[in-house]
Amino acid sequence: TQQLLSEPSLEAPRTRPCKVSTADRSVRKGIMACGLEDLLLKVRDSLMLADKPFFLVLEEDGTTVETEEYFQSLADDTVFMVLHKGQKWQPPSQQGTRYQL
Amino acid sequence: TQQLLSEPSLEAPRTRPCKVSTADRSVRKGIMACGLEDLLLKVRDSLMLADKPFFLVLEEDGTTVETEEYFQSLADDTVFMVLHKGQKWQPPSQQGTRYQL
Repeated sequence: TQQLLSEPSLEAPRTRPCKVSTADRSVRKGIMACGLEDLLLKVRDSLMLADKPFFLVLEEDGTTVETEEYFQSLADDTVFMVLHKGQKWQPPSQQGTRYQL
Repeated sequence: TQQLLSEPSLEAPRTRPCKVSTADRSVRKGIMACGLEDLLLKVRDSLMLADKPFFLVLEEDGTTVETEEYFQSLADDTVFMVLHKGQKWQPPSQQGTRYQL
């Protein structure tokens, strides 16, 4: 187990920039977070979601992000989308808004 | 926690070049700022916004920048856009202006 402690993946995760969008893509905010739990708390505060349950998916393809491990595999400035129960991810083209790289 | 103090991200932030655009992309100014609060003050003066409330988003994708932490994660010469309440970010193509990389 001592060996494990020196592995990069077990070091304290660094704080990373994330982008978080509402389901209708009308609002997108830049949020720094060191992990999925941290991001969930900051999203709740920043988008004033109060106690309404929500989850995060990747904005680009609707992939649900629900483990810390998977969150840590994502690149800086990954765009997340907030979905509430019953909401479904939709591709940008169906909303009449196009993002360009 | 002592280790954290030596991390670059906790050093005094350096002054960095920023670019600030109006919502219609008709004006773009270069402004040096050491932080988000500093940039907001300089934008207000430079674009003569007086006391009209405004916020800053990334010109490239409309991400709202509202925390010092997220501001510090951005690269030099990041282009910000000034939006007033009720204004929405629009991609360049919808305004008939195209920027090239």
